[in-house]
Amino acid sequence: MAGSSFLGPGARGEGVLSDAQGEETLATKGAGETARRVEMTIRQAIDRIVADIPGAPFKTTVDTVKSGNPDQALMGIVTTMFATDEVIDKTIKAGANFIIAHEPTFYNHQDETDWLAGDRVYDFKKALLESHGIVVWRFHDYWHSFRPDGILMGVYTALGWDKYYNSGAPEIVTVPEMTVGEVVALAKKAMGIDKMKMIGDLSAKCQRIVVMPGSGGGRAQIGALRKYQPDLLICGELNEWETSEYVRDVWYQVQKVSLLVLGHAVSEEPGMEALVPWLNARLTGVPVKHIPSGDAFGWV
Amino acid sequence: MAGSSFLGPGARGEGVLSDAQGEETLATKGAGETARRVEMTIRQAIDRIVADIPGAPFKTTVDTVKSGNPDQALMGIVTTMFATDEVIDKTIKAGANFIIAHEPTFYNHQDETDWLAGDRVYDFKKALLESHGIVVWRFHDYWHSFRPDGILMGVYTALGWDKYYNSGAPEIVTVPEMTVGEVVALAKKAMGIDKMKMIGDLSAKCQRIVVMPGSGGGRAQIGALRKYQPDLLICGELNEWETSEYVRDVWYQVQKVSLLVLGHAVSEEPGMEALVPWLNARLTGVPVKHIPSGDAFGWV
Repeated sequence: MAGSSFLGPGARGEGVLSDAQGEETLATKGAGETARRVEMTIRQAIDRIVADIPGAPFKTTVDTVKSGNPDQALMGIVTTMFATDEVIDKTIKAGANFIIAHEPTFYNHQDETDWLAGDRVYDFKKALLESHGIVVWRFHDYWHSFRPDGILMGVYTALGWDKYYNSGAPEIVTVPEMTVGEVVALAKKAMGIDKMKMIGDLSAKCQRIVVMPGSGGGRAQIGALRKYQPDLLICGELNEWETSEYVRDVWYQVQKVSLLVLGHAVSEEPGMEALVPWLNARLTGVPVKHIPSGDAFGWV
Repeated sequence: MAGSSFLGPGARGEGVLSDAQGEETLATKGAGETARRVEMTIRQAIDRIVADIPGAPFKTTVDTVKSGNPDQALMGIVTTMFATDEVIDKTIKAGANFIIAHEPTFYNHQDETDWLAGDRVYDFKKALLESHGIVVWRFHDYWHSFRPDGILMGVYTALGWDKYYNSGAPEIVTVPEMTVGEVVALAKKAMGIDKMKMIGDLSAKCQRIVVMPGSGGGRAQIGALRKYQPDLLICGELNEWETSEYVRDVWYQVQKVSLLVLGHAVSEEPGMEALVPWLNARLTGVPVKHIPSGDAFGWV
């Protein structure tokens, strides 16, 4: 994700702007200058964030603390899609101690860990987090519940489609006519995507585009196709016995709708990058940086 | 899937061998010859098949009749992964009336259809099936419960790895040392795969390979990684917040395991092709043909 910006303590422009792929620190500029400690615990930061989410706090949510003690002083925040070992490592090197991740840390939606007892991959990650006092908090249900949905609007903004957002039908935009191939090229460039799966026709014209980042499930994805009858559905991930089979049958019948499957992580990453200015506006003086976990996959 | 063979009524070689992608008929050779009707109902064929599955019939299974009246006379069987509109059309043109599909017909695992009421894509498929009296039966749980697992052994056979099958640890084979890249090339050629997702190193050597076609879920896939500590995991489909994230973390740590994600349909297709001779051995005189539903996706 190009364009990640780190805003140091105090105000915009004071911090270190660095390559998101490299090693970064959250210290302010100036040799010998001691990084100012923000006078806030991680728990207080969480409470401040949740206070702006409609209907929050939720009784049932996966947005819980996955690791660490939130009562420690907040040193700096890293937003990301997945708290991978690599992201944790970069967070430690950056001097931050709070990772806000959109997705699970321990390889299952509920972040249950009983089934991972004694697993060395789990043990390594747990030790890495604990030995450095890193707090990981999931920010999934809350961010999707903000209005507009923080992930969705981050994606629309990355694509230049935020101006077409309609709160009455948030998951569809009507864009100036372009081909499916042009949408593919735009998504690749704007979202840093290498390759994607698709069904349809690259030369087909499209204007009505349903955008569903992440993994909404077959009934939601097919439901949106039925409700909006779009020219194109863009999703992050799907079950290959659900939406893709529906679209394959659509394609065999007289209607035409194309499908782009971006990949789960890359489809939502812009929404976690968009969280940075949102946090800056609410947690004045707290260093916040997006470190992309990026695409896990290559293509062969 | 190259090499699909149609065996006409009677015996091997009597029927029409044709391109699996083209239009086929299940009639025997010879102008004016009337296709012999097999003296068996579809229900009797199902009962004969299920009789050879250990522990069957199952009280709870998705392997139910999805469409049509199984008490009609069996004219011919088509095996496939998905009973897509296209496969149904080809079945009709081939003069068969019984589709044995591994995966759901109506875009959800349980083939529930209440949520599709009034949907024109569903209505089209339903009318296509009903107007031609086509019976669709799912053969998923039963085929996986045969020993050796019919899908798994079909895949091993396609890859030339059936000789390494070990009933004590069916999901892992130990093959002569080859690189991950060589496995990719083999899988592409043997299984008709265009492109796949991967994590790992194409030049890494591998011998211990876990093969899990289809969509086994994160706990099963990760469980196999823990149990066997293989060099390579080959799966059909995964949830992108589960196994791939685990493997990404493995990769960041000292251990190395590569992951190939073939795609769900193409990962199991050889197992439904392998069903043809299995049926021929049990339903003498019944025309049986594999019509591949193939990969729904293209790659851009």
